[in-house]
Amino acid sequence: MKIAVDAMGGDNAPEALVKGGILARDEYKVNIVLSGKENEIKKILEKSTSDFRNIEILNAEEVISNEDKPVMAIRRKKDSSLVKALNAVKNKEADAVVSAGSTGALLAGATLVVGRINGIERPAIGALIPNMDGGFALLIDSGANVDSKPEFLYDFAIMGDIYLKKVMNIASPRIALANIGSEKTKGDKLTVETYDILESTHLPLNFIGNIEAREILQGKADIIVCDGFVGNMILKTLEGTVLEIMKGLKNELMSSTRAKIGGLLIKPALYSFKGKFDYSEHGGAPILGVKETVIKAHGSSDEKAVKNAIRQAVICIENKVNDLIEESIMRR
Amino acid sequence: MKIAVDAMGGDNAPEALVKGGILARDEYKVNIVLSGKENEIKKILEKSTSDFRNIEILNAEEVISNEDKPVMAIRRKKDSSLVKALNAVKNKEADAVVSAGSTGALLAGATLVVGRINGIERPAIGALIPNMDGGFALLIDSGANVDSKPEFLYDFAIMGDIYLKKVMNIASPRIALANIGSEKTKGDKLTVETYDILESTHLPLNFIGNIEAREILQGKADIIVCDGFVGNMILKTLEGTVLEIMKGLKNELMSSTRAKIGGLLIKPALYSFKGKFDYSEHGGAPILGVKETVIKAHGSSDEKAVKNAIRQAVICIENKVNDLIEESIMRR
Repeated sequence: MKIAVDAMGGDNAPEALVKGGILARDEYKVNIVLSGKENEIKKILEKSTSDFRNIEILNAEEVISNEDKPVMAIRRKKDSSLVKALNAVKNKEADAVVSAGSTGALLAGATLVVGRINGIERPAIGALIPNMDGGFALLIDSGANVDSKPEFLYDFAIMGDIYLKKVMNIASPRIALANIGSEKTKGDKLTVETYDILESTHLPLNFIGNIEAREILQGKADIIVCDGFVGNMILKTLEGTVLEIMKGLKNELMSSTRAKIGGLLIKPALYSFKGKFDYSEHGGAPILGVKETVIKAHGSSDEKAVKNAIRQAVICIENKVNDLIEESIMRR
Repeated sequence: MKIAVDAMGGDNAPEALVKGGILARDEYKVNIVLSGKENEIKKILEKSTSDFRNIEILNAEEVISNEDKPVMAIRRKKDSSLVKALNAVKNKEADAVVSAGSTGALLAGATLVVGRINGIERPAIGALIPNMDGGFALLIDSGANVDSKPEFLYDFAIMGDIYLKKVMNIASPRIALANIGSEKTKGDKLTVETYDILESTHLPLNFIGNIEAREILQGKADIIVCDGFVGNMILKTLEGTVLEIMKGLKNELMSSTRAKIGGLLIKPALYSFKGKFDYSEHGGAPILGVKETVIKAHGSSDEKAVKNAIRQAVICIENKVNDLIEESIMRR
């Protein structure tokens, strides 16, 4: 098995990507293709390991950044680390792509270069939201599609279900629809129609009804289905709130001698608490609905997070997640 | 000036409503009409004050709860504290309504009993979101309308602008559109079209472009305009995250002796921090776009929060907010 890693994408690129690749090679016995500037990658490789087996470099001189317009970047930057990694997968020279770079570019590339699974009109991105019990929920779609139709949300539920069953080992994932109330009749046109579809589907989906945004961190659902605009709002509000609270708390703990001493004493507890919101543990966000395995690692991924994202890709491939999605979509 | 208070709505009704009414009477020199069960209200009044001037009771034997279907409750429960308070305003026997009860019922009642301002198709609810700098932003619409059209969001911006100028004394409120990216072309059909309208309006609106959900607590905008489905997701995700973090932090601080001692030391700092997210300071959420002043106080309002919600109503009336909205809507 061979995993293509976009070595130039992400806040800690290329170092975290290269090192994460080495870790994954050692732990999961896979081959790693590092796509990016050969010189830079080589330097880090030589510093980090003396064993170069099962690691190859795919030279690419261009880099796609968050500032690039996604579709245009994919079309024009043919010699970029991302496009080269995607092409390797498309041409069956690799089995999956992992990138911590621009989400938009990865999405555009997954659709334009790799292509959609038959029957899937809109691939989606599934973000893992950690909750307070140490568990998580898959928020799908977390930002790939706006102005979704009910049929798209139905597909998101089907894809999320297979992903959690096969990759996260959850026997019967509880699927909920993000909504502004718990009753069936609540919501906008999209959610009301999607509710009907999910309730009456002949597929074995464990649909548990609506979930309000207030309950998302409470671990009541394993999959939260929504339009990408809404999913992005949920995800970004959550991230922003956690960030601002932690920042505010830090300031408050510096505000007096008493608070400073208290702050020192609670430091371990605070770290353990912060760990619950640690994205790196659960790996990255899968882009579901495209023909090959594509995993978006968090932009701030360190080498451990990169390793975990590669593990996700490995499990997807081993369990033929994309084949199962295609089968389910054909039967829906 | 006479403010009708729905004395039976909210988690702490009727006590907090009655006591808040007394406080407001004393501080703002207004008349208070307490709508609800006369016996219960009388008992609290007698316990709380020896001065009954400028306070009257409007007897109502029914109560509308959060479980009632809003429109049906307004139509059928004619003898409820809420409907009676709304009718008092409609019949010019009072100048404003303040309620801490069901948001849905208050919205339905504001529209059905009081009626919309000429030219306003959709009244909206504006929630005040406190931010880390001690300021706040008005999130409008925070849940009254789903499937909004761009014209509705334009009206939300106009109404929010007048409200912040007149009630919150902000000279030139920065208006932002909640969106999934900062560029003009980002978003769904609704936000792209609304952006165009807000950018090219001849009204003196200080439109500053898109705001991402991640930035909402950073105090970058004074007004955040969005569809009610989206606004509800933002508001509830924010509330849920703050709540779960505080709960989780508390547990963590009980996890060891060391943490417990540290916890005691940081208690004052923690309270000061929590105070920043205190809804009661800023009062309630105005329902904008209806003919009379209607303020929704937070469900968990204590007497101070009720008093502040009444203050908001007073300022709205004194500054003729509804007249100004009608004028602006005619000129848009």
